[in-house]
Amino acid sequence: MLKAKEQMKIISKGVENLINEEELLRKLERSYESSKPLTIKLGLDPSAPDIHLGHAVVLRKIKQMQDLGHRVVIVIGDFTGRIGDPTGKSKGRAALSDEQVKENAKTYCDQIFKVLDKEKTEVRFNSEWLSKLNFEDVLRLASTTTVARMLERDDFQKRYQNQVPIGIHEFFYPLMQAYDSIELNADIELGGTDQTFNILMGRSLQKAMGQEQQIAIFMPILEGLDGVEKMSKSLGNYIGVNEAAEVMFKKVMEIPDNLIIRYYELATDEHPDEIDKIKEMLNNNVNPRDIKYNLAKTIVSLYHTKEELEKAINFYDTAFSKKAIPENIPELKIEAGKVTVLDIIPKLKDMSYVSSKKEFIRLLNQGGVQLNGDKLSSEDINIFLKSGDVIRIGKKRFLKLIFD
Amino acid sequence: MLKAKEQMKIISKGVENLINEEELLRKLERSYESSKPLTIKLGLDPSAPDIHLGHAVVLRKIKQMQDLGHRVVIVIGDFTGRIGDPTGKSKGRAALSDEQVKENAKTYCDQIFKVLDKEKTEVRFNSEWLSKLNFEDVLRLASTTTVARMLERDDFQKRYQNQVPIGIHEFFYPLMQAYDSIELNADIELGGTDQTFNILMGRSLQKAMGQEQQIAIFMPILEGLDGVEKMSKSLGNYIGVNEAAEVMFKKVMEIPDNLIIRYYELATDEHPDEIDKIKEMLNNNVNPRDIKYNLAKTIVSLYHTKEELEKAINFYDTAFSKKAIPENIPELKIEAGKVTVLDIIPKLKDMSYVSSKKEFIRLLNQGGVQLNGDKLSSEDINIFLKSGDVIRIGKKRFLKLIFD
Repeated sequence: MLKAKEQMKIISKGVENLINEEELLRKLERSYESSKPLTIKLGLDPSAPDIHLGHAVVLRKIKQMQDLGHRVVIVIGDFTGRIGDPTGKSKGRAALSDEQVKENAKTYCDQIFKVLDKEKTEVRFNSEWLSKLNFEDVLRLASTTTVARMLERDDFQKRYQNQVPIGIHEFFYPLMQAYDSIELNADIELGGTDQTFNILMGRSLQKAMGQEQQIAIFMPILEGLDGVEKMSKSLGNYIGVNEAAEVMFKKVMEIPDNLIIRYYELATDEHPDEIDKIKEMLNNNVNPRDIKYNLAKTIVSLYHTKEELEKAINFYDTAFSKKAIPENIPELKIEAGKVTVLDIIPKLKDMSYVSSKKEFIRLLNQGGVQLNGDKLSSEDINIFLKSGDVIRIGKKRFLKLIFD
Repeated sequence: MLKAKEQMKIISKGVENLINEEELLRKLERSYESSKPLTIKLGLDPSAPDIHLGHAVVLRKIKQMQDLGHRVVIVIGDFTGRIGDPTGKSKGRAALSDEQVKENAKTYCDQIFKVLDKEKTEVRFNSEWLSKLNFEDVLRLASTTTVARMLERDDFQKRYQNQVPIGIHEFFYPLMQAYDSIELNADIELGGTDQTFNILMGRSLQKAMGQEQQIAIFMPILEGLDGVEKMSKSLGNYIGVNEAAEVMFKKVMEIPDNLIIRYYELATDEHPDEIDKIKEMLNNNVNPRDIKYNLAKTIVSLYHTKEELEKAINFYDTAFSKKAIPENIPELKIEAGKVTVLDIIPKLKDMSYVSSKKEFIRLLNQGGVQLNGDKLSSEDINIFLKSGDVIRIGKKRFLKLIFD
């Protein structure tokens, strides 16, 4: 096991907020001295869809602690799922059968184990303990917090102010999550910053029940490929952990240069000292493209075999490497907005890349038009283009779009 | 059984608020037609001290319905008592042992049965059903109401506004009382006006759970002997149901004339038609004292045997009747305020009732000074007097205090 301070360095990497460092150091020192691993808790609602690198930020941090030798417990919130929304108002919270919950959980875990070490990860269902609580237990649990404290939670506050009804039972969702920490005697709980209230509730419940308080680690939200919006499937700016190595590689190469370090911190398990070296390289004018190339290798290798990685590198090099795409290709400046492939045909004529729309369509049908290395077909004629897109006509005619 | 409309007349007597009359009439009609009694519920927290006529207002109303043939169920809130205040902050809510709760309940019921018919009254403990609820049941119960609705309750609202903490578990006290109605399938629940929120919660819970809604009957607060303040032991303006017939009789004779009808309505089971006749008598200038004399007989006979009543009447007549107290006795007008027996000695000298303080003290020690028919001793020299008090010195010297 690494010494406490060394562990601290790794655990703190990329963290948005950690409550609190002093307590964590004490726990790590005690764990080091006694060779007793800490219990790391992650609560999951098994309703999420395919996992992307944004979801994986928390999982990667947990994987790093797992690699440090600590005990990881995933708590599947099946009790809440099994109950659903007792008011029946929310369709998203329809009660699920035990089988459905188990099945959802399995699909979900299969994805989690793309990040975590399956052999070293305990998966627990919180119905195991929550279904055993009786009314007295529940009242004792409820007595540990107040109405005012609950109404501090952002979403409750807004709903209360806007007179959107809040069912009394909803106050129990944070309390149940907190109770899971009691049951596990958790040392550390992780989550996104949106979990701040619930995870701190765990701390205060542990205090109320005479347990040592867990450390709360909040991970930031990862920006998507556009470098601005939160990574999300609906915005299309995501890298899915299930995506093919080739796709993953190319997508990493698309992120803006100013996100390179952030992706190193949040989407890889690279040691902080290594990341410091990369920062220095960037400051010393090493070409960001080369560093991004390494980042892409690092990320792809987290989710794919060596062979898959090599295939992906070859594919990328063929389609996009310096050999394939000339260094200085002509730029076409156009007004920013919704621009389709169809819209730029006149420009291509102006530049003498094609003689007519007819010729363009013919080339398109023959696979002679590429967008960022992907062959386009006639079905793609109406897709939207974005600034930085590279269009290739035939073998040698390249064009880079720049939005004004 | 009486017809529904006749029953309505009796049930409505003296009621502060009834929700709602139409529903009650329907229930009574159905009960009359099917010869099936209605279930009347009264929830009690077995922590109250000696019962006085103020507490008995609700019990008397229930007794009237019992006499109409309905089924009365007293619910002892032992579940709450057993749990106490889980935060441990309130000493009044320390958890009680099962034995303590049972013992308290017994003492309490002994007093209740001074009003209700023991043979016809069911006593249930709500731990019987509440202790069986599991977490899922509790969440389902909690989901039937909202935070905003709970915070409408007067005391919660004030505490929330004044930032006095409200534990989440406190929201369950009204819900538990409401759940008791579900368990009994109650047709009617009674309480003081301070129970408005809790009893209406029972109505909405029944609706949410698909039961016919109970009728809520709220009884007013009875004024004490002073005619102004609420009857209460701490204010000393009360008539206890356990008090001796003589004391009870005398105390009734002390109430202000304008409360005669109110006491008939709230502290006796007199039929509304009879009360109408008494109102008429008062309007026709029958001496209120004579009517109060009948009221005293009626009230005493509710709590004592015929023999005790007769003894009380004799005692009263001897000490206070027209023979004993002359019709027109001198009045002593003094400034309103805290006036003790000691304070009025100079006045008595002025009126030549006594020749000196010394003589007064001697008479006092010999039992020759009476206050409203009770002999005073030298220990009473500092008790406070009030307007209307009659002081008797020796056999013939009477004096009535009138506060300006």
